[in-house]
Amino acid sequence: MKIISSPKQMLKISQQVRRARKTIGFVPTMGALHEGHLSLMRKARRDNDVVVVSIFVNPTQFGPREDFRRYPRPLRRDLGLCRKEKVDFIFYPQAKDMYPQDFKTYVVVKDLSNVLCGKSREGHFQGVVTVVIKLFNIVQPDIAYFGQKDAQQSIIIRRMVDDLNMPVKIKVMPTVREKDGLAMSSRNTYLNARERKDALILNKSLRLAGLLVKSGLRDANRVIQRMKQLIMKKKTAKIDYIAIVDTKNLKPVKRIENRCLIALAVWIGKTRLIDNMVINVNLNV
Amino acid sequence: MKIISSPKQMLKISQQVRRARKTIGFVPTMGALHEGHLSLMRKARRDNDVVVVSIFVNPTQFGPREDFRRYPRPLRRDLGLCRKEKVDFIFYPQAKDMYPQDFKTYVVVKDLSNVLCGKSREGHFQGVVTVVIKLFNIVQPDIAYFGQKDAQQSIIIRRMVDDLNMPVKIKVMPTVREKDGLAMSSRNTYLNARERKDALILNKSLRLAGLLVKSGLRDANRVIQRMKQLIMKKKTAKIDYIAIVDTKNLKPVKRIENRCLIALAVWIGKTRLIDNMVINVNLNV
Repeated sequence: MKIISSPKQMLKISQQVRRARKTIGFVPTMGALHEGHLSLMRKARRDNDVVVVSIFVNPTQFGPREDFRRYPRPLRRDLGLCRKEKVDFIFYPQAKDMYPQDFKTYVVVKDLSNVLCGKSREGHFQGVVTVVIKLFNIVQPDIAYFGQKDAQQSIIIRRMVDDLNMPVKIKVMPTVREKDGLAMSSRNTYLNARERKDALILNKSLRLAGLLVKSGLRDANRVIQRMKQLIMKKKTAKIDYIAIVDTKNLKPVKRIENRCLIALAVWIGKTRLIDNMVINVNLNV
Repeated sequence: MKIISSPKQMLKISQQVRRARKTIGFVPTMGALHEGHLSLMRKARRDNDVVVVSIFVNPTQFGPREDFRRYPRPLRRDLGLCRKEKVDFIFYPQAKDMYPQDFKTYVVVKDLSNVLCGKSREGHFQGVVTVVIKLFNIVQPDIAYFGQKDAQQSIIIRRMVDDLNMPVKIKVMPTVREKDGLAMSSRNTYLNARERKDALILNKSLRLAGLLVKSGLRDANRVIQRMKQLIMKKKTAKIDYIAIVDTKNLKPVKRIENRCLIALAVWIGKTRLIDNMVINVNLNV
């Protein structure tokens, strides 16, 4: 496993690999790796000749009052995990090389970026999309892997890739959960014991929604109300949003029909957590 | 010479060419080709194994009151000229394939896009940069060729390519002029006989600026004043802007030192024309 810091050197390697007609599977991460990330690496390993993982805590996707400085950076542990998954290259750039002084370019996917998580995290998806384009251009992947936990992110990235004709295939893999149902997240380490228990309420509220829909409830607002009631019972919990939207345009639906995304963000103490579930009424969820 | 309309097919061809280790030279155009475009094609032909020219009147770079509908589209003539220059592929997409119904992505190069031509043509450079990224991703060029006449455009595209780590080299070729000095432009065909004569004033005012600087004048505002006075003598002329800026950040300079760009846009009747000159005091202009 080789660790590459220079964007130029990484591009050179990617181009050599592509010229040798080998395929590149790419897993972009901010480090602090967990089973969710590892499941993406395993899939990339199965699908491709060469696997590249980037570790970069991208400053431009954090708001001014968010946890950029505090975000965990257990590099040695991360590298050990990547080695176990037989990753070929770690791309580990420095911020000053990704964003030199005269940096002026940003990319916006309109309509999709200012709803759900984009509403409370202004500029977040602009930062995500811009760094993903940069990483794709540097790593030149055939396939890039993302987790379903960040549902809005992968919908936005798919739209951007289509819109800008980027020759990359996006694969989205299922959310990996702890045994008790909590969606894996690097931010779970922020939680104390009490909060860790309360955090289960995100997944529980989604399961409640699933049961309600299964039992015939189709009114999206009533489902959301029932989820709210359940979550508000936890003292450490504060709802950022709960939304039921179509999976293409992220527009709220009134009635739950066909494919919908139920997504939520909840503050547990000082930690903002997200989770979601895709529901497909036709398939008898 | 093959004419390709489908972005997918064009990408397939580009990838085949790259995999065969041949280089691609790319000249993006809006058609209505003149000697300026042809000089880019000749340079691309000399530098590369395969030459691709795109012909696409990109709707998103025209403002609502601009000349999108009126813009000349002499396709048969354009194809004949390309054939003479031994172009290998014409990429001639339809707007509906470049911008499908759900298109939502745009790219901004801030600071550089809202000055000079960007001031009177709001959204213009956003449209240019976005379509250029799309074209680069579809055509996969090693080198792309632009004309110095659109100085701001090539500065913005260079910035975007660097910022987004696109693996493309940008070459900017000198402005090609008519015998009497008028910069070649597809929009020159809009001019009537009287206007065609008056249009010379753009180049004349630049030559005056060059002489003033040569004779020792360094005050940018005084140079601009002298250019204004000259241009205002023409009845059909109305100045949009005259600016002397540094060539990296396009910020106005007070004193003419080192490398500057003198750029102007002037309405001649109902036709907006641009021209520019790079001045390098150290090199003794």
